[in-house]
Amino acid sequence: MLKVPQHQVAGHMAKNGVLGPLVDDSGKFYKPLQNNDRGSTELSFYTSLAVPPSISSFFPAFHGTAVVPASDGSGPHTHLILQDVVAPYTNPSVMDVKIGSRTWHLAHSEDYIAKCMKKDRDSSTVPLGFRLTGVKDSVSSWEPSRTFLQSLSAEGVSLILRKFVSSAADSDRSDCDFAAEVLGAVLERLVELKAWFEVQTLYHFYSCSVLVVYEKEKGKTKPLVKLVDFAHVVSGNGVIDHNFLGGLCSFINFIRDILQPLPH
Amino acid sequence: MLKVPQHQVAGHMAKNGVLGPLVDDSGKFYKPLQNNDRGSTELSFYTSLAVPPSISSFFPAFHGTAVVPASDGSGPHTHLILQDVVAPYTNPSVMDVKIGSRTWHLAHSEDYIAKCMKKDRDSSTVPLGFRLTGVKDSVSSWEPSRTFLQSLSAEGVSLILRKFVSSAADSDRSDCDFAAEVLGAVLERLVELKAWFEVQTLYHFYSCSVLVVYEKEKGKTKPLVKLVDFAHVVSGNGVIDHNFLGGLCSFINFIRDILQPLPH
Repeated sequence: MLKVPQHQVAGHMAKNGVLGPLVDDSGKFYKPLQNNDRGSTELSFYTSLAVPPSISSFFPAFHGTAVVPASDGSGPHTHLILQDVVAPYTNPSVMDVKIGSRTWHLAHSEDYIAKCMKKDRDSSTVPLGFRLTGVKDSVSSWEPSRTFLQSLSAEGVSLILRKFVSSAADSDRSDCDFAAEVLGAVLERLVELKAWFEVQTLYHFYSCSVLVVYEKEKGKTKPLVKLVDFAHVVSGNGVIDHNFLGGLCSFINFIRDILQPLPH
Repeated sequence: MLKVPQHQVAGHMAKNGVLGPLVDDSGKFYKPLQNNDRGSTELSFYTSLAVPPSISSFFPAFHGTAVVPASDGSGPHTHLILQDVVAPYTNPSVMDVKIGSRTWHLAHSEDYIAKCMKKDRDSSTVPLGFRLTGVKDSVSSWEPSRTFLQSLSAEGVSLILRKFVSSAADSDRSDCDFAAEVLGAVLERLVELKAWFEVQTLYHFYSCSVLVVYEKEKGKTKPLVKLVDFAHVVSGNGVIDHNFLGGLCSFINFIRDILQPLPH
């Protein structure tokens, strides 16, 4: 039985007959394969992915493809079968962060580059090196609009990050401890990811997101950091992904600033 | 007595009546102050520069301004008086690397952004995150053309870096040791600089260069890493300079690859 995912915060959503991802009750996520370069790029990325074991945990598990009924009612459609990374959570809080100050690469068409450039300049992508593309608190149902999120200032991002990890209830000391614990765990994973990006020259990840997931109910499932969306991955050709790395470092610095408020 | 610098590798040169920098014999470098935003930006950068002591060594010392005869014969002109960083060297080898995959920022004019975008895409700036803007070996007089340098591939940059640190004579074991020693010293400084860029949110350095200087004659002056050209520095506003940091990490990775050849 395939159904519409409850905790998706970015990308096309399978609502009102639109083509979007589906999930089953065994923890699988069915992502419609796009009928263009993006589809083939993402499929070949997943089929050929070769990273150190410590790094593979940053990617959703891949279980091949399947032709299943499309969410838009258009009949059978090929889907990537991926790990549904939020499946272990009861009430996941989810944040999708598109990393990099540039979402295009040189092999893209002029039209596509111009479109991306405009969006990158109009959003926080150029100034901050990333943009928040979706945030959701499944306990309080807090879900700021995507348009609002994408063009936040530095101060705005900082506020959203604080709110994302604070409890839905009023903040008391124990909530602060929990928020720091969540952010600390996320930071630790992001720093591991950064160490890989400082040396890996296999892939350049354009328009790729870091997905942050945690459970508000204390003591339950650990926070999670995953990379998602590989429709614009290109070969690194011996060069590190300085665009992703720069944006990741910027995002890391926002989290570090919240954890360790210091004059600067 | 002001004269034309012997070891300048990038920027406008004071030759054939062009307005360019001058040096004196006391170790000072006179940079003509531009009569526009760039001039005022660079002057205010130097006058208000406030960085930790360990970081100030990455900047040329600043000694105010002076009105001296311009190199183009146009009469008295205001110059920034800076430290002539190559003065302690007898035969300096010099490399100028413009760091960042973007040389413009959002406050620039549309015309300027379009001009930079074209140059960034046509050079190694977008693909590699930096471009070599000048290289000179004062012993062998090797000085590749700037046009050639700016659009090098990853392999090309790697070759130039190797040649930059190899002796003018045939390479023997002792030359390799010396080259590794020079690159190791440069790498160490770049890694110190990177650590600062991972946290500093004071400045964003657009179109700024890392200058690498060393002496071929063994045992003499130590290699040097300096930041130069601050005509397009803007306030960081609480955000790290992800553009400079990404490019710096990319440049660091090229040097590390040469020092520690590993399969990847």
